[in-house]
Amino acid sequence: MARIVMKFGGTSVADLSRIRHAARHVEREIKAGHQVAVVVSAMAGATNQLVEWCAEASPLHDAREYDAVVSTGEQVTAGLMAIVLQSMGITARSFSGWQVPIKTSDVHGAARITDIDATELNKRLDDGQVCVVTGFQGISPANRITTLGRGGSDTSAVAVAAAISADRCEIYTDVDGVYTTDPRIAPKAQRMVRVSFEEMLEMASLGAKVLQTRSVELAMAKHVRLAVRSSFDDPDAPQMAPDGSDTGVPGTLVCDEDEIMEEQIVSGVTLAKAEAKITLRGVKDHPGVAAAVFGALAAEHIVVDMIVQNVSDDGKVTDITFTLPDKEYDKAVKALENAGDGLEYSRIVGAKGGAKISVVGVGMRSHAGVASSMFKALADKGINIQLITTSEIKTSVLIDEEYAELAVRALHTYYGLDRQDA
Amino acid sequence: MARIVMKFGGTSVADLSRIRHAARHVEREIKAGHQVAVVVSAMAGATNQLVEWCAEASPLHDAREYDAVVSTGEQVTAGLMAIVLQSMGITARSFSGWQVPIKTSDVHGAARITDIDATELNKRLDDGQVCVVTGFQGISPANRITTLGRGGSDTSAVAVAAAISADRCEIYTDVDGVYTTDPRIAPKAQRMVRVSFEEMLEMASLGAKVLQTRSVELAMAKHVRLAVRSSFDDPDAPQMAPDGSDTGVPGTLVCDEDEIMEEQIVSGVTLAKAEAKITLRGVKDHPGVAAAVFGALAAEHIVVDMIVQNVSDDGKVTDITFTLPDKEYDKAVKALENAGDGLEYSRIVGAKGGAKISVVGVGMRSHAGVASSMFKALADKGINIQLITTSEIKTSVLIDEEYAELAVRALHTYYGLDRQDA
Repeated sequence: MARIVMKFGGTSVADLSRIRHAARHVEREIKAGHQVAVVVSAMAGATNQLVEWCAEASPLHDAREYDAVVSTGEQVTAGLMAIVLQSMGITARSFSGWQVPIKTSDVHGAARITDIDATELNKRLDDGQVCVVTGFQGISPANRITTLGRGGSDTSAVAVAAAISADRCEIYTDVDGVYTTDPRIAPKAQRMVRVSFEEMLEMASLGAKVLQTRSVELAMAKHVRLAVRSSFDDPDAPQMAPDGSDTGVPGTLVCDEDEIMEEQIVSGVTLAKAEAKITLRGVKDHPGVAAAVFGALAAEHIVVDMIVQNVSDDGKVTDITFTLPDKEYDKAVKALENAGDGLEYSRIVGAKGGAKISVVGVGMRSHAGVASSMFKALADKGINIQLITTSEIKTSVLIDEEYAELAVRALHTYYGLDRQDA
Repeated sequence: MARIVMKFGGTSVADLSRIRHAARHVEREIKAGHQVAVVVSAMAGATNQLVEWCAEASPLHDAREYDAVVSTGEQVTAGLMAIVLQSMGITARSFSGWQVPIKTSDVHGAARITDIDATELNKRLDDGQVCVVTGFQGISPANRITTLGRGGSDTSAVAVAAAISADRCEIYTDVDGVYTTDPRIAPKAQRMVRVSFEEMLEMASLGAKVLQTRSVELAMAKHVRLAVRSSFDDPDAPQMAPDGSDTGVPGTLVCDEDEIMEEQIVSGVTLAKAEAKITLRGVKDHPGVAAAVFGALAAEHIVVDMIVQNVSDDGKVTDITFTLPDKEYDKAVKALENAGDGLEYSRIVGAKGGAKISVVGVGMRSHAGVASSMFKALADKGINIQLITTSEIKTSVLIDEEYAELAVRALHTYYGLDRQDA
């Protein structure tokens, strides 16, 4: 007997026939003798309609009222899911966030879960009942409904899983797992069987499509095993991992590093296009200069990605380079030009149209030479590297956008990630 | 300074432009220095969609889950109304039934309000804030959302008005008041300025189109002055009664009898068509026979309307006649034929296609001869009366459906209800 949280996203509960299909996944686990808490999103499109109405009511609407309106989407799905489960002979009831209660901060529209009182959920789960909980919402200290912000339903699911000490939290979505790279670019990309939380976080550009970063962080902190899988699968198919191993799910299991027996040096290759780079030449090399640069950008709400500052040659001036989305380029240049006294440099140079390629893997920690092998693999294809940054489990380079797909495929093959049957 | 509850029905909040128009009615009262609590229905059509989804999820759905789903309609309107009011510079916040809290019984789908804790509402009203409360719903002792059944929003409004000791409860709808009879039948029908609760209840067939019977009963019991008026009116027009008298509203005021200075003998004429009559001839005249007849019908969920039993000629057998909707006629006859031992009679006769005409007026209490004058007015037009029942403030007759409109117009003129300018 296991305890499982099953979270269904918007496309998985888009209409009654999808809800019925999702319910059959729940039925399978109940029949297998497991205890199940279900977390649901709003029906696809419902939240957008509600958000639109709020914007139409007033462009400057009260976030508390926005939350009261927008939170109804999940309440509808939770009730319908409970009805459908009951019609299958399964005892089920819905819980709005405030009924659980899922307590949150009072930052409406972007609240954080502070505590979940799982007394009632635990009692019902032990009794064999399915608890259907609204994702994305909770209740503030002032007794008002809060929402967690877009994608918050994944976070709700993980938080519920932690509160009820679930064995795993399954995120049902419209893709069947996390891939070693984007299959549209590298057809030999394969579904990962297991991936560590750290890798998942570093692969944000791959992972964000299927899992909210925030929910992965929470799962890592609370040691909640996460699974990404497709709700469109046949609910009665065998629950086998892609490689036949025993993860309990046919999708991808995101788990603690020590659950992964044989670590690959590189687990995945990610790509972000339309990255611009900006270099400040001849920046005075003294304390506070970086703060001045990025403070000027932050004031304009520009989010930068890679940052590189090399050791200065003469101890007097240096160069600072950073990347940011192409569409922010002009705004960033203007912000730096107008930054005023605090910021001294000789000139600004830059260009749009870069691509950031990263290789990610916890194996890097114990394997030397990953970066150099990456550079060699790219050099073999005649690809020039413009910028390099590294973290403990990730190495990223900026290259010309033209070479992006070639680079991804080359690295995917080089690190042995290609599917053997492809 | 007055305290006013303003209730807006589904067509009055059908979309953002309607909500904005409704909010201008609120703005007028706030500017006049009044305290306002708003009660809202779901946007027109929203509840039907939610009900449909529940039916699609399962024909035999859990009423508790149905309530959780269906109650979201008003939550959306309440939030949007609060946002719109704020955008006009009015301090406002929404309250779901459970937040007030509006406590109800646990009969889901048809709950009764047991208590309203108005502490929070009173505090905010005194502070000049507008409280926007969801109609139609509350919270059960088991902490689950309940709904009051269709039309329950009027009842919510009256209950809130009673709880906050409001000076009046205004029901905004898509008609501008209660009329002396159906204007489509009698073009000279006029809007009533004031009508008593008792009359309103007896005029159910007229009144039900604009006010739920249940809300009128509650208003009568709690002495809440009710007003029926149109949300489609110009919010900035003078707040005058149709006859220029000082009721505070341009619609119809439903109030205690003693607030009505000059009582008319007859206040309104009502009509119900498609009424069938059934007569049991030769019924044994002993105790329990009526119970046997109507018990057999109740068992089949047939609601009867008029019931007439005359004194028996010989003390042995009598006739019992009753009316019911045409569409229930065949079912009722079958139920009586199969009623078995308890019920002895010689034969059943009956016919479909009757019309019930009623004249209603609290003035009847102190004026003799209303019934006979009614019969004379009908006889003058050559209309035959099949059945007569009377209550303290209402006299009803069953006539052939063909004469229905003629009878309504004749009585409307006879009792001096015609508009003078028509």
